[in-house]
Amino acid sequence: MVQIEQDILGKNDQYAAANRSWFRAKGILALNLVSSPGSGKTSLLTRSIQDLKGRYPLAVIEGDQQTSHDADRIRATGVSALQINTGKGCHLDAHMVGHAIESLGLAEKSLLFIENVGNLVCPAAFDLGEAHKVAILSVTEGEDKPLKYPDMFHAADLMILNKIDLLPYLDFDLALCLDYARRVNPGIEILQVSARSGEGLDAWYGWLAARMAS
Amino acid sequence: MVQIEQDILGKNDQYAAANRSWFRAKGILALNLVSSPGSGKTSLLTRSIQDLKGRYPLAVIEGDQQTSHDADRIRATGVSALQINTGKGCHLDAHMVGHAIESLGLAEKSLLFIENVGNLVCPAAFDLGEAHKVAILSVTEGEDKPLKYPDMFHAADLMILNKIDLLPYLDFDLALCLDYARRVNPGIEILQVSARSGEGLDAWYGWLAARMAS
Repeated sequence: MVQIEQDILGKNDQYAAANRSWFRAKGILALNLVSSPGSGKTSLLTRSIQDLKGRYPLAVIEGDQQTSHDADRIRATGVSALQINTGKGCHLDAHMVGHAIESLGLAEKSLLFIENVGNLVCPAAFDLGEAHKVAILSVTEGEDKPLKYPDMFHAADLMILNKIDLLPYLDFDLALCLDYARRVNPGIEILQVSARSGEGLDAWYGWLAARMAS
Repeated sequence: MVQIEQDILGKNDQYAAANRSWFRAKGILALNLVSSPGSGKTSLLTRSIQDLKGRYPLAVIEGDQQTSHDADRIRATGVSALQINTGKGCHLDAHMVGHAIESLGLAEKSLLFIENVGNLVCPAAFDLGEAHKVAILSVTEGEDKPLKYPDMFHAADLMILNKIDLLPYLDFDLALCLDYARRVNPGIEILQVSARSGEGLDAWYGWLAARMAS
C-alpha cells in the first residue's frame, strides 16, 4: 500500500506543480480552505465575497461529496463558482482543480478560493497548487482539534478561528486552543472571526490584501 | 484503483464478519459512533457512561489520528478504554478493532462503544462488525450535512442531533435537517439531545436498553 500511496501523491504533486505555475503566470492568488464539516467555510466565503467584490476579480471552486448547495450559495453573490462532487472521495485533488480552472475562465490577478471537502484528515496530504492552506476551526468543535488532527494544522499557514460570537455559550478554552495550534505549527498565523457578526473580518481582509499585493 | 479499493473493502469485510460473530457469541452490543470532528461524541460518551455504569458492563475503543486525550477522558470515568491512533488514516478498520477487542478483555453482555475518527466520509465504507452505526450531528454544523455526506447518514441506523442547548443562539432549521436526514435514509431514527444539559438523554438510554435486551 505504501508504494501505491506514493504513486498517487507523486502524480498529484505533478498536477499541483502545473496549477501553481499557471497561477503564478496569471498573478492569481489561490487559497485552499480546509476544515471539518460545518465550521462555517461557506458562510465565511459568502460574507467575504460580499465585502471584497469591488476590490478584486473573485472566483470559487467548491468541493463536496454531494450536492451543489455551496456553489449555489456562492453564485447567489454574483461570483462564478464551480462545484466538484467527489462522490466516495474525501478530498479534492490537483487534477480535479486543473480541470476546474480550465472551465472557470479566471481573470488575471484574481483571488481564487478553493473550498475543500469538509474533512480534517484527507485534504492535508493533497497539494492543489495553492499559495496557502487556510484551516478554519469553529469554536464549537472544541480546543483539542489541532492536536488530534495535527497534519492539517501543520500544513496550514493560517488558522481562522470562526464563530467567536458563540464563545459566551460554550466551554471553550481559547488560550489552550491557540497553544495547541502553535504546538503542532509554531509558525501558524491565527485570526479570530465571526462570519455572522463580522467581528475580526477586517484582519482577514488585511491578510488577503497583503498577499494580493505581493 | 477500483480493483484495489475492492480488495481492501473485501478484506475488511472478512475481519468485520469475524468481529460480528464474536460479538454475537458473547452477547455484546457494539456501536460504531461516527461524526465530524467536534460534534461532541466524547462528551456524549462520558456523560452516558456516568449514567449507565451501574446497568451494564461498559467498554470503549477510541479512534483518533493522534493523541490519547479521548481514551484518557473515558478512563477518568473508571471504564476501560483502548486508544487506536490511525496516523495518516482517516477511519478505523475491522482489523484494528479485532486487535483492540483482544486486548480489552470484554465481559459477556457488555455494551461496547467504538468512537471512530472524526470524519463524515471515510468511516462510512468500513464495517467494523458493529450492530449499528450511530451518526452524531451537532446543530452548530448546519442542517445540510446529511445531504452533503449522504453515505454516512445512509449507513447509520440512528442519528443523534447533539448540542440542542445551543439552538437559541444559532440559525439552524431543525425541521429541514430532519427532512434532509430522512431523504437520504427514510428508515433512520433520530434523537435530539444535549450531552451538556442532559436534555433528551433518557430517550438515548431507552434506545440502548431496548437493544441490550434483545
